[in-house]
Amino acid sequence: MTAVQMLAAISEIGRDQQRGGYSRPVFSEAELELRAWFTREAASRGLDVEVDRNGALWAWLDAPHGKRQDVVITGSHLDSVPGGGAYDGPLGVVSGVDALARIKERGHPQRRALAVVVFPEEEGSRYNQACLGSRLMVGELDPQKARALTDAEGVTFAELAARHGLDPEHLGADPERMQSIAAFVELHVEQGKGLVHMNAPVAVATSILGHGRWHLRLEGEGNHAGTTPMDDRRDPMVAAAQIILAVREEAAKIPDARATIGNLIPVPGGTNVIASAVDLWMDVRHLDDAVVRRLVRAIEARTQAIAAGEGCSAVMSENSYSPTVTFDRQLQQRMQELLPGAPLLPTGAGHDAGVLSAYVPSAMLFVRNPGGVSHAPAEHAGDADIEEGVLALVTVLEDLSR
Amino acid sequence: MTAVQMLAAISEIGRDQQRGGYSRPVFSEAELELRAWFTREAASRGLDVEVDRNGALWAWLDAPHGKRQDVVITGSHLDSVPGGGAYDGPLGVVSGVDALARIKERGHPQRRALAVVVFPEEEGSRYNQACLGSRLMVGELDPQKARALTDAEGVTFAELAARHGLDPEHLGADPERMQSIAAFVELHVEQGKGLVHMNAPVAVATSILGHGRWHLRLEGEGNHAGTTPMDDRRDPMVAAAQIILAVREEAAKIPDARATIGNLIPVPGGTNVIASAVDLWMDVRHLDDAVVRRLVRAIEARTQAIAAGEGCSAVMSENSYSPTVTFDRQLQQRMQELLPGAPLLPTGAGHDAGVLSAYVPSAMLFVRNPGGVSHAPAEHAGDADIEEGVLALVTVLEDLSR
Repeated sequence: MTAVQMLAAISEIGRDQQRGGYSRPVFSEAELELRAWFTREAASRGLDVEVDRNGALWAWLDAPHGKRQDVVITGSHLDSVPGGGAYDGPLGVVSGVDALARIKERGHPQRRALAVVVFPEEEGSRYNQACLGSRLMVGELDPQKARALTDAEGVTFAELAARHGLDPEHLGADPERMQSIAAFVELHVEQGKGLVHMNAPVAVATSILGHGRWHLRLEGEGNHAGTTPMDDRRDPMVAAAQIILAVREEAAKIPDARATIGNLIPVPGGTNVIASAVDLWMDVRHLDDAVVRRLVRAIEARTQAIAAGEGCSAVMSENSYSPTVTFDRQLQQRMQELLPGAPLLPTGAGHDAGVLSAYVPSAMLFVRNPGGVSHAPAEHAGDADIEEGVLALVTVLEDLSR
Repeated sequence: MTAVQMLAAISEIGRDQQRGGYSRPVFSEAELELRAWFTREAASRGLDVEVDRNGALWAWLDAPHGKRQDVVITGSHLDSVPGGGAYDGPLGVVSGVDALARIKERGHPQRRALAVVVFPEEEGSRYNQACLGSRLMVGELDPQKARALTDAEGVTFAELAARHGLDPEHLGADPERMQSIAAFVELHVEQGKGLVHMNAPVAVATSILGHGRWHLRLEGEGNHAGTTPMDDRRDPMVAAAQIILAVREEAAKIPDARATIGNLIPVPGGTNVIASAVDLWMDVRHLDDAVVRRLVRAIEARTQAIAAGEGCSAVMSENSYSPTVTFDRQLQQRMQELLPGAPLLPTGAGHDAGVLSAYVPSAMLFVRNPGGVSHAPAEHAGDADIEEGVLALVTVLEDLSR
């Protein structure tokens, strides 16, 4: 089965009837089904599958006499944002499986072992912590903090990990594994129109915009929507509305900056109730980390002024921040030599490869996305482009494992 | 057990740890526990409890030789808004039980039977249809429409009703029962500060503001928060923010009008995702129905202009509308004679008594709420005021049943 055929095989798993697209949060029924499917597919191609201490799956194509040291890895993730597309994550996973199967079939002489990795909770859609699995592995995320994270149902990550066979006490940095990695190459659907404009199927990544997530909590006074006069309200929804507009305004002032409020939850959230509180989550990105910081400070100042003006209080806190990533120059140059037609492309989206890049030589391949849409049902990659992506990945992995 | 003691007895049922206060949606575990508790309490006082075709509970104090015709009823509801207070609904129910027990104990000579009624889904917090039970009973709500209503989990009201022992095919108008009612007196905690300003414990209601609920659906283009430039977005959250501000602005132009957005759900609702759609629910009220209509039209026009400006589409639809209610004048005057110290008070909140008032003489008693807060944990009524309320209810019910 090729990568294209594998995507077709999982195309009914985790469909979201309400939102459209797919909702496959980490360790949900859908993601578990995908993990089981991955394990079967990898095993059927003679790859040896293991689960690491943080819940990542590793499917190994060992070198004839090689130990699992000085290894080359590829892969991505199987979890999705709510109502996401079919390609963000799975494309990198199935392309990895396809590539390793082809390398094996051709009897390519390997000096280094190869593996396809599936990282858990890359999207952070369940615990609001993007790249949870890879951050744990590299030692960037305190396992104590990870264990205490709670999802919308109040389930801690420790509880969830234990439920799915992990030892919560063994979550965290995996230095031996990290030291064994010679290179990581993640293939991913492009999340913009760069390749459309450049008229090419596959690109080599240069960098990832610095990006972070902030939580804003607004508190006002809950009351009855019918009995409370308009001028006697401290309505945090009205404050939230002004903040959403301020976020856009501040971001628009800075070229190439992005700031988004994609989630908002009023408390209690009744039609005939003035909210007592509102939770907002904000995503901010720019290639220059200092600009991100400046933009967030400006938004914070606006937030406080707006909240005060409505008689509300506001608390803003950082959930996560990933500084700008510049991928390994040497690896990038080698990939350009191996893939002469592939242009260079930066991206605004975070990836596990971005997390690993601070520790091991890391690189990314992007596959063309005709509409440029991602994190939504319209996300797409054409069959021919996917095949080009797999061929590029085979070329790169063969070279790196030689 | 007095009304005050009964409230204490149920004070742990349905507490909402996240929102504070109580969440007791209709036929939830909490509301079912309250219904069972009501049935036991009423039975232990010699009241005869039955469930009607629409799921309302009726606890009867029959007259010695009287049939259940030409009856006088009191009561309220046990369901709550999410994170609501302890009094809105339950106060009227426990006061009714207490009042009937006292009337029975005193051996008051009754010509008419008395009953305490518990209406289901008064708040509309599960099916977004306020006064669902009473609207079905009077025949205002098409049972076919009621059966098809779905809650947030996709459970239809027909399914839920069947699950709790009702015959979905028998939901709907109950003309025999309606014809048997001589009067309905609902006691309720006040949802504003009228009685605080007038320095009185109990008031007689004059009217209920015309009020309704509208749903607004905004659709834009879902996309990745990190890769989509600010000027290439059709973000329905930004449109929603402007609409929230327009709603407040338009309502503030009209004296005594109220318009609230208390609930908003972005789709898909991910931190790193530009929403593809946003659902908003709006509550609008004014004593003059024509003013409500004019205000809603103005908001609709603003909504369309805002959505168009953001490249989004907007659809606004009416979920329910309750015209202004003026309570039965004769009954109101009689109650004033019986309760000489009780002032007259209008309210902005809808009630089952408002629904019944178009069909049978209906009235309301309000009990002082020191902070004026309702639909929130801070909702309150003092013990002495509750006792005054019960005494007033006893006086009125004794007179009406004589």
